[in-house]
Amino acid sequence: MQHDHYFGPATQQKKVARQLYERIFDLPLVCPHGHVDPRLFADPDATFGSPTELFITPDHYILRMLYSQGISMEELGILRLDGGNVQTDQRAIWRLFCANFHLFRGTPSGIWLAHELSEVFGLNEKPCTANADRLYDAISEKLAQPEFTPRALFKRFNIEVLSTTDAATDTLEHHQAIRASGWDGRILPTFRPDALVNLDTPGWRANIDQLSAVSGIDVVDFTSYTRALEQRREYFKSMGATATDHAALTPATAELSPTETEEIFQRALHGETTCNDTARFTAHMLIEMARMSIEDGLVMQLHSGALRNHNRMIFERFGPDKGADIPLQAEYTRNLLPLLNKFGNDSRLTLIVFSLDETSYSRELAPLAGHYPALKLGPPWWFHDSPNGMARYFDQIMETAGIYNTVGFNDDTRAFCSIPIRHDLWRRVSANWVAGLVVRHLIDMDDAHEMMFELSVGLARRAYRL
Amino acid sequence: MQHDHYFGPATQQKKVARQLYERIFDLPLVCPHGHVDPRLFADPDATFGSPTELFITPDHYILRMLYSQGISMEELGILRLDGGNVQTDQRAIWRLFCANFHLFRGTPSGIWLAHELSEVFGLNEKPCTANADRLYDAISEKLAQPEFTPRALFKRFNIEVLSTTDAATDTLEHHQAIRASGWDGRILPTFRPDALVNLDTPGWRANIDQLSAVSGIDVVDFTSYTRALEQRREYFKSMGATATDHAALTPATAELSPTETEEIFQRALHGETTCNDTARFTAHMLIEMARMSIEDGLVMQLHSGALRNHNRMIFERFGPDKGADIPLQAEYTRNLLPLLNKFGNDSRLTLIVFSLDETSYSRELAPLAGHYPALKLGPPWWFHDSPNGMARYFDQIMETAGIYNTVGFNDDTRAFCSIPIRHDLWRRVSANWVAGLVVRHLIDMDDAHEMMFELSVGLARRAYRL
Amino acid sequence: MQHDHYFGPATQQKKVARQLYERIFDLPLVCPHGHVDPRLFADPDATFGSPTELFITPDHYILRMLYSQGISMEELGILRLDGGNVQTDQRAIWRLFCANFHLFRGTPSGIWLAHELSEVFGLNEKPCTANADRLYDAISEKLAQPEFTPRALFKRFNIEVLSTTDAATDTLEHHQAIRASGWDGRILPTFRPDALVNLDTPGWRANIDQLSAVSGIDVVDFTSYTRALEQRREYFKSMGATATDHAALTPATAELSPTETEEIFQRALHGETTCNDTARFTAHMLIEMARMSIEDGLVMQLHSGALRNHNRMIFERFGPDKGADIPLQAEYTRNLLPLLNKFGNDSRLTLIVFSLDETSYSRELAPLAGHYPALKLGPPWWFHDSPNGMARYFDQIMETAGIYNTVGFNDDTRAFCSIPIRHDLWRRVSANWVAGLVVRHLIDMDDAHEMMFELSVGLARRAYRL
Repeated sequence: MQHDHYFGPATQQKKVARQLYERIFDLPLVCPHGHVDPRLFADPDATFGSPTELFITPDHYILRMLYSQGISMEELGILRLDGGNVQTDQRAIWRLFCANFHLFRGTPSGIWLAHELSEVFGLNEKPCTANADRLYDAISEKLAQPEFTPRALFKRFNIEVLSTTDAATDTLEHHQAIRASGWDGRILPTFRPDALVNLDTPGWRANIDQLSAVSGIDVVDFTSYTRALEQRREYFKSMGATATDHAALTPATAELSPTETEEIFQRALHGETTCNDTARFTAHMLIEMARMSIEDGLVMQLHSGALRNHNRMIFERFGPDKGADIPLQAEYTRNLLPLLNKFGNDSRLTLIVFSLDETSYSRELAPLAGHYPALKLGPPWWFHDSPNGMARYFDQIMETAGIYNTVGFNDDTRAFCSIPIRHDLWRRVSANWVAGLVVRHLIDMDDAHEMMFELSVGLARRAYRL
Repeated sequence: MQHDHYFGPATQQKKVARQLYERIFDLPLVCPHGHVDPRLFADPDATFGSPTELFITPDHYILRMLYSQGISMEELGILRLDGGNVQTDQRAIWRLFCANFHLFRGTPSGIWLAHELSEVFGLNEKPCTANADRLYDAISEKLAQPEFTPRALFKRFNIEVLSTTDAATDTLEHHQAIRASGWDGRILPTFRPDALVNLDTPGWRANIDQLSAVSGIDVVDFTSYTRALEQRREYFKSMGATATDHAALTPATAELSPTETEEIFQRALHGETTCNDTARFTAHMLIEMARMSIEDGLVMQLHSGALRNHNRMIFERFGPDKGADIPLQAEYTRNLLPLLNKFGNDSRLTLIVFSLDETSYSRELAPLAGHYPALKLGPPWWFHDSPNGMARYFDQIMETAGIYNTVGFNDDTRAFCSIPIRHDLWRRVSANWVAGLVVRHLIDMDDAHEMMFELSVGLARRAYRL
Repeated sequence: MQHDHYFGPATQQKKVARQLYERIFDLPLVCPHGHVDPRLFADPDATFGSPTELFITPDHYILRMLYSQGISMEELGILRLDGGNVQTDQRAIWRLFCANFHLFRGTPSGIWLAHELSEVFGLNEKPCTANADRLYDAISEKLAQPEFTPRALFKRFNIEVLSTTDAATDTLEHHQAIRASGWDGRILPTFRPDALVNLDTPGWRANIDQLSAVSGIDVVDFTSYTRALEQRREYFKSMGATATDHAALTPATAELSPTETEEIFQRALHGETTCNDTARFTAHMLIEMARMSIEDGLVMQLHSGALRNHNRMIFERFGPDKGADIPLQAEYTRNLLPLLNKFGNDSRLTLIVFSLDETSYSRELAPLAGHYPALKLGPPWWFHDSPNGMARYFDQIMETAGIYNTVGFNDDTRAFCSIPIRHDLWRRVSANWVAGLVVRHLIDMDDAHEMMFELSVGLARRAYRL
């Protein structure tokens, strides 16, 4: 434990931050939302592949930065959908990455990478051209050892619970395999129905057929569609899920009439979705999902505000999730009004909202969460999951919402090995913020220690019903 | 005086902040805008009621936080409009509040409450379940003493002047009673015509009749309406008012033709207001009110940007002002253009604008106030009247607007006993900000002391013509 | 060199900032964008005029602040377009300015002015009524000396290169005179075609005739218009230009059909421009200009977001650039999409975007620049070219974009004597920010020194191809 990392520069505050941090740094990691592949834990002998496959290829933060500086996706080994040539030499990609490591100076990716190399792999060198091969070999050697299987690292990382994110039609076979194996790592699915709810999802019609197949309910109209969704939620619950997750372009919610809902759904089934249908249907379904959450007790998460696949060429050539999603301005006060007026006063509902538009923090989200019993605020998300992003979150949200209307931390990552550093960063930035309250005499040390426990594990456990 | 409270953590800056603060901390309190009930001062023997009635029931900040955590308004003793059962045991409500005091950690309410207990009532314990009854009794005992009447505290708080906010049709009987009583506390009315200007005000038609009655001018058309408003302004002025106050959903201003104005007004009189009428009429009336301000010298305040009564259930069951108003995005550059082009170059007008959308600070409000002679910026408002909110205000406004285009502090509160801590917080955060300029060598100590005087009392006195 | 100015208050961070600053403070000044009049350097004996003409009359930051406090443009000696009376006594204007110098406390203008007086003129007194005449005389005396000609100061300031901003139809005679004179100061033109591209420019039709005249291409349709623009770009390049600059109300881009383009252009030629034409034509021309930049290698700058001449009276009586331009909310994610989808993946293009809406920093601009190879972010602009504005820029942009997708500093000034302080301020605020990364252990000192070099000169040289 390097005590001073990421604390602010003022001596007195740093001292208090360290005191706070020392009390909570080794608490287990509660990971209620993320994108780790459950397959990694289904097979006890699963491995992470090459250093390149572990650190670079799947990480859209890394890809976007390298791409922004003129390095092509092909050079980075990203497969082309048309099967065109790309670099396949994993070591060559690693060298390219190391030669450009300076690009990550001052970025969260730079912090995560340095920490993973150091804390997970025991490598304290900053990557560069000169040491690229040495690092590659050292990491490869480690990854071949039994201490570096996903299951072994799960234990080493002291993960209390890890939620994955799974399509609503997923059979959860990897989760079943984990259970069947008798391994005691707690890995839970999360119900994500976007591909069934957002009518513009490529392959939506086929997804509906799959829904019919997995649910055993013939989806022919909105009623059967709703029943099938409810059935899938029950199945996820039976497999340990405590939450759902919903992605939408905007947080718009609206209650449509049964007639309109059915008409839109029928148009969608017949491939005749009109312009507004998609937006209105998603808006309606968010309210439907809130209703289901009240009934079945699954916590509801809403991630909105990214314009996906902004770069058409990248999308067409390499597919989604390559670092080309860009946030949009967001509005919550009017958009959430229909949902909150219907269900916001119902304490049985927990709706956790995430934002990519930080201007909503102090203006809309904190005032909303500081009033509605059903509403909680998710941690700083995506581009804002960083030292400054977290500091702005604390600065702009906590005075109005209080910490008890927030839900602690999500690592929200595909990069399993980055989980410890992400939590550690959150705990350190939290400690620094809470210490700032102490040294300014806004709270006392008793309050501070309790707040740190809440921010580290308490809020997440309670909000996600874990 | 606890010297270090609310100053930043850096040693050198804290030292300078303390030097600055020591020079101004005991200046009188200038309170040019707020919502204290004048009735409290009309009767020399008025009291504050129970601790619950003083601290909890009327404070929408407190209500909203408790409500957000699943405590019902009924449990908090908020009267239902339908006469349904609510908690009436004041002590029980106080206990509930104390048991949940941790919710206010790090919030401005938490700061205000702790300071009021300590500085006003001499109670230095943090409320909790264990001490709830003891605190209740101790406060009750104090409140029964003559040193704790509103008039006595007004003197003890060293309030130089306190402006209330009063409906345009108010007869100002309590203000008259204060004057008649010979008591020398300076309490001034403020002219707030929203209920006559915003056509969607419930009971607007009855308000117009009341306007006719109190003004003695039969309001039958836009001309008589305008004359009646002017008459009321004159009356308020004669009672000591130096300012008006205007609430609007947005800061839109527009100059309508006399024909359109009359048509809208007639439709309103006949209960036939159309969709756009309300917005256009308010926009027009803001320009009309600016004209009147130029003529009669009353300072004009504009508070916009809150979507009132966002939670329909709360509004229908308990009425307004229960903590369910939520800010909206705001636009000033285009919205204020018509008003500023008509009157913005006229130094006789002082238009003080407040914002709930902090993004407008550096982008629109500071550039506007740093140019137009008539425009000044009000202090951080409502959700932003907090240590961080003030820090962001200083950070984002002062470089472009300069402090001389701002108006010092407003406590803007219904909670009379919180006035000293609110001013003290402003003065401390101001001192911390000014000290930051000093230690970074942006200004010298002479400038710093003068700025502190201005921020504490000078700007408010001049801007509000007090 | 006063080591501590503008560094933050924390001791350890200040120490590191000083170490970083000491390594780069005397690097030459790279000035790739600004508005200095090339005439100043064309004549070896050119002078700056009176202190008033140097410091006050041309500086819209100064004018706006004084005007906002009720001082008329006439008193400040700003010429009226109608020839009406204005103050012509330069000394009287200077006195008025000195008597109101307190208005600039804590503003960037205040910093720049104090530093210019001190570092350029050796005058360490804060202007006030008492010393106004003494300062006026002292500055006047200096300005009469050969060490204070523009060319002499250019050398003293250690300016490596200075780009001016020039109308596309400019013959660049002053640039030619500079070259012909044999003087070795590197002063480059920048191609700014706004007056030809924005159809609502007063005198647009005459500008087109001038374009025909200077290019020798008869501009009769969109094709000849495009050829003439390309010809002018070539001419600017031959005179040393490395960049173009484009001002637009919004960053909207759109690719119109050849038919629509031609129709709009013909309507414009015939004075029949319709409402939407201007917006659509500018949006289209931004894409056209990006195409030309790919072909001829000129770096493309886009400055958008100011509503020019907000104060109609000021504009009509005194003309533009008097401090009455006000920023608007801006949207980049959707607006830049057409341009970026067409050319954003092409590394031959460098598009440098500037913003007056800081909310776009972390939400849109950093994510966009952190992905698209062609996109870079310009430094904090105009109202945000200040200590806090720079700090917000670093805070909100660098984690996502990284410094390598930014372009260092622009002084962007008409006020030649303010160039050194503006760069010094940037370098100091940069050093403070980088030191903050060091003391929080986010980077090491090697990284820090390299980042400081990049922020001071490296990024600007490379981005602008200097």
